[in-house]
Amino acid sequence: MNKTGIAIHGGAGTILASQMTPELRAAYEEALRAALHAGNNILQANGSAVDAVAAATVSLEDHLLFNAGRGSVFTRNGEHEMDASIMEGRNRMAGAIAGVRQVRNPIELARAVMLKSEHVFLSGEGARNFALEQGIRLEPASYFFSQFRYDQWKAVRDSDQYMLDHSSPVEDLMKDKKFGTVGAVALDRQGNLAAATSTGGMTNKNYGRIGDTPVIGSGTYANNATAAISCTGHGELFIRSVAAYDVCAMMEYKHMSLEAAMQEVVMKKLKSIGGEGGMIGIDAAGNISLVFNSEGMYRGKIDHSGNVEVSIFRS
Amino acid sequence: MNKTGIAIHGGAGTILASQMTPELRAAYEEALRAALHAGNNILQANGSAVDAVAAATVSLEDHLLFNAGRGSVFTRNGEHEMDASIMEGRNRMAGAIAGVRQVRNPIELARAVMLKSEHVFLSGEGARNFALEQGIRLEPASYFFSQFRYDQWKAVRDSDQYMLDHSSPVEDLMKDKKFGTVGAVALDRQGNLAAATSTGGMTNKNYGRIGDTPVIGSGTYANNATAAISCTGHGELFIRSVAAYDVCAMMEYKHMSLEAAMQEVVMKKLKSIGGEGGMIGIDAAGNISLVFNSEGMYRGKIDHSGNVEVSIFRS
Repeated sequence: MNKTGIAIHGGAGTILASQMTPELRAAYEEALRAALHAGNNILQANGSAVDAVAAATVSLEDHLLFNAGRGSVFTRNGEHEMDASIMEGRNRMAGAIAGVRQVRNPIELARAVMLKSEHVFLSGEGARNFALEQGIRLEPASYFFSQFRYDQWKAVRDSDQYMLDHSSPVEDLMKDKKFGTVGAVALDRQGNLAAATSTGGMTNKNYGRIGDTPVIGSGTYANNATAAISCTGHGELFIRSVAAYDVCAMMEYKHMSLEAAMQEVVMKKLKSIGGEGGMIGIDAAGNISLVFNSEGMYRGKIDHSGNVEVSIFRS
Repeated sequence: MNKTGIAIHGGAGTILASQMTPELRAAYEEALRAALHAGNNILQANGSAVDAVAAATVSLEDHLLFNAGRGSVFTRNGEHEMDASIMEGRNRMAGAIAGVRQVRNPIELARAVMLKSEHVFLSGEGARNFALEQGIRLEPASYFFSQFRYDQWKAVRDSDQYMLDHSSPVEDLMKDKKFGTVGAVALDRQGNLAAATSTGGMTNKNYGRIGDTPVIGSGTYANNATAAISCTGHGELFIRSVAAYDVCAMMEYKHMSLEAAMQEVVMKKLKSIGGEGGMIGIDAAGNISLVFNSEGMYRGKIDHSGNVEVSIFRS
């Protein structure tokens, strides 16, 4: 049997230990562990990497602590518009959705796009219609409501500011200091890789803005020949950098290791253009890398020996 | 003074000489020449590559012969939803829009996103609101109407078929045998590269489908260190291949020439997964490549010596 491995993230950014209570930290760590186990249980039962990353991402989407699915931030119009994508390394099949409302688990919709449509990328009302046809579960606005997110939005909604769920000019208004994205990467016993990413986007976002999360090659990429990657950070700069695929391109064409390629993209290339954030990756040998240039990244992994690790700040 | 160069495409696919009248062929060639000159005039007046590719693309968008802007095909709902993107090689700034209605020149909106927003990628109603704020010209449905496109749509609308503006299962219904996309790449006297791509998408498209056209890295990419690339073809496969950036990655990491890298991506990688279509590219030395694995590609170039060439079929 091949090795297995799984890694997850719940966003990166200015996460300050001084502002984190022991209770909140414990809640984050428990949520990360639960997501890791949701994915790992599938891998240990000889399930596929794509099912494992979907299960881990669903677990994070269902948690109010993270900006994805249920915990998605409010848009300028007081709504929730979510983006997600998923990719399978075996055949490089992919599915992505952008600007979709009411879908309980956007990553399930992205997977349905991959498996059950002729398309890769669906958006807006049309994507929601596809969700309805596929029996994907929708939820009313109340499901996505939390007082915390609502207060966060109210504080910025008339300020003409966006919030990347942290690095805003109105920093003092913000209680939630992170880039809001969740994601997972995994290697299954069959040697197949997969990656998934999901987000509620920016607080107070406008103009139907799409970040890197649903952009295959930028926010998500997987190829059995190289690695599976999921990103979190300032999406515009990850798009311009084609960040996820660039790691795989350097592995394939320059024969760099996953860790070296991720260090190059996150700590040099992205950092040099102000691209704050991070990424997680796993290669075909089960090596896992978690790299970020921000102060923290909610993250965790279960390696091929079964060791479980979750962390938030720099170690 | 540095060399200049410009290349354009008006879509690729099953374009059969036997179905093309001399009059239609002359009309296509004249439209391609007009677009080349619109861009080249800017380059010869020491204008920027980004202005040149925008001008060439606008010229193609304004022409009913091509599936972009005015000539955009009908969606399932009988509307026109357009995608476009633009990228500047100097600073790798980029702008993209998806699923936008009524905008006369989608490439102008993509350029406004690049230059006048904090974002890279806007979509749907939100992107149109941004267009209104920026004074981008909108047009009523009548502007986008042509009997030819309407008849094409009517023929497939209740058939549950999509049309990539050609390679449909209902081939006999189709009069218009091409992938409908337009694009341009250019090198200016300052040594800067730029790329632009614009499309009306698939006839009878549904679910808010987005192809590769607005996906930076897949349909469009530019970097002064390597090349500017614009793609046309079966968008889903170009997204999964991160086609435009892959050419530049092989140039940078494997030191391949533009032509060799484009041959590898179009004639080997894309072809092996059924990814019909092509791409145009220009590198920092002014070398131009036009590569396609389909039967034809509407295309043209003006090289650094001022030679003008337009073609449709394989030579």
